[in-house]
Amino acid sequence: MLQQTLPYYLNIAAIVVFAITGALAAIQSRKEMDIIAVIILGVVTAVGGGTARDVILNLPVFWVYDPSMLVAAVAASIITFFFRSGLKRRLSLLLYLDALGNALLLMSVMKKVFGAGFSWEIAVSAGVLTAIGGGLIRDVLTGRTNLLLSRELYATPILLGALLYVLLLKFIPDSTPLQLGIVGFVFIFRVAAIRLDLSLPRWLIASEKQS
Amino acid sequence: MLQQTLPYYLNIAAIVVFAITGALAAIQSRKEMDIIAVIILGVVTAVGGGTARDVILNLPVFWVYDPSMLVAAVAASIITFFFRSGLKRRLSLLLYLDALGNALLLMSVMKKVFGAGFSWEIAVSAGVLTAIGGGLIRDVLTGRTNLLLSRELYATPILLGALLYVLLLKFIPDSTPLQLGIVGFVFIFRVAAIRLDLSLPRWLIASEKQS
Amino acid sequence: MLQQTLPYYLNIAAIVVFAITGALAAIQSRKEMDIIAVIILGVVTAVGGGTARDVILNLPVFWVYDPSMLVAAVAASIITFFFRSGLKRRLSLLLYLDALGNALLLMSVMKKVFGAGFSWEIAVSAGVLTAIGGGLIRDVLTGRTNLLLSRELYATPILLGALLYVLLLKFIPDSTPLQLGIVGFVFIFRVAAIRLDLSLPRWLIASEKQS
Repeated sequence: MLQQTLPYYLNIAAIVVFAITGALAAIQSRKEMDIIAVIILGVVTAVGGGTARDVILNLPVFWVYDPSMLVAAVAASIITFFFRSGLKRRLSLLLYLDALGNALLLMSVMKKVFGAGFSWEIAVSAGVLTAIGGGLIRDVLTGRTNLLLSRELYATPILLGALLYVLLLKFIPDSTPLQLGIVGFVFIFRVAAIRLDLSLPRWLIASEKQS
Repeated sequence: MLQQTLPYYLNIAAIVVFAITGALAAIQSRKEMDIIAVIILGVVTAVGGGTARDVILNLPVFWVYDPSMLVAAVAASIITFFFRSGLKRRLSLLLYLDALGNALLLMSVMKKVFGAGFSWEIAVSAGVLTAIGGGLIRDVLTGRTNLLLSRELYATPILLGALLYVLLLKFIPDSTPLQLGIVGFVFIFRVAAIRLDLSLPRWLIASEKQS
Repeated sequence: MLQQTLPYYLNIAAIVVFAITGALAAIQSRKEMDIIAVIILGVVTAVGGGTARDVILNLPVFWVYDPSMLVAAVAASIITFFFRSGLKRRLSLLLYLDALGNALLLMSVMKKVFGAGFSWEIAVSAGVLTAIGGGLIRDVLTGRTNLLLSRELYATPILLGALLYVLLLKFIPDSTPLQLGIVGFVFIFRVAAIRLDLSLPRWLIASEKQS
């Protein structure tokens, strides 16, 4: 019973965190932004990636199936609008929660997609799309330099975590400790990237001048 | 019978108006644009929002089901290209027609979505997505400041009209006068926003300097 | 037998070419880009248009159905990253292969869509969307001036080829020579556009100053 309800509340919690960080990023991208735009951009960040995943896999879109996900994203965006000053002061905590939410979501999406009988390539793609899709749409709509182009490692921990999980499944059976280990790997890698300002080594970066 | 055919011609009329205003906005966004780009951007503006709605709700995409919608958008875009000077002089008339088309479309989408058994949150989302989706895609493709970020009230009348309709349905039964009232509310609110250069009050606008 | 396997290998070959030209265009759009971004943008260019087509037509998305398409795009993007200097020196050869891939893909998509019982308007739209969709998404994500807005003729040969095919089908029966003729027309038109720096005649270009 707990196992069935836990993912649901985790999912809602992840949606709320993505809406908050999404709405904050939207607000900071422009000199002025009205509440309607903040709500729409917060919601797009929170549900955009999962929507693209469900549409591509031809599954019912999660928030159409369960509109409470949508309501949670709208509510979190409104609260973010009014408490933006206070939330901005807690930005690093929010970024850690965002990293944790993404790590948990990646694992729950991969399990769901494997469970539906798709291959590992599709599970990895679905996990990565869910994690970065919404933020990409928000960045395009607000004109921010998007998270793919910034040197910060955002997609990398998620992609490597997904590939590591698939690789380990070839050698050991699936288990809760393995899944928690992957969640920990993705989370710690992302937090380290934020704190230590990590980027990929030079030979994995194409530079127009040099080559 | 008339009730069945009326929505169809209204729908075609709305598509034509959206293609015209979309193609004009595309032309004005760049110093030069060839006719192929104008056609593609006019069509995207006219059908983009409805396409996203149908894909997300897992309904047959309306213009795949009825390609005359697509033909109407292409024809309107071509005509707009050749008569752009004359049409630009009638821009305010076109913007009123755009507002009227959006108000009618919002109502027809909400009725269609409710009729298909979806909840009110989905009906509101579908209505707003239909009304603003195509314009957002066009703005992203042409590099214009998109309609969410401009201070002009574009999405707001549509969203408030949709919420008002849902709210009133809790107290009074659905009826043609109620629906016409909502269409009138959305239309007049949007026209007032254009004529009086309305924007939301300051406490509903996040300003980076201030907070 | 050959007729059944040929399209598959052609399709893989087209995906590989689109991923290479897409990854190169992505690399050249920014001063620096890491390998993860190059892979994601190469894959998006290669499969984005076909994904949008399949989602809109409510067909199974081709790379979900056959993940080897996705693997081919990832592998081609990685190879492009490491051999970018050499590939850039062969850029004009790659652009010709890109043009050939697009011409072949346009024809195979139109045949597939006609075969599934859709009308000619839908076949033309699906062909054009497949050919330009992925490149448009890449351009939006990298902030490049997108292929619709550049004066270079990219979408035009594809659209005219598609319309010509549909027009000729009204007068003559479908045949392999007809299809090869259309592929040749699209390819030669595009190569001529690259080599001779063709653009549409002035009366088919809207100029903001003039009108």
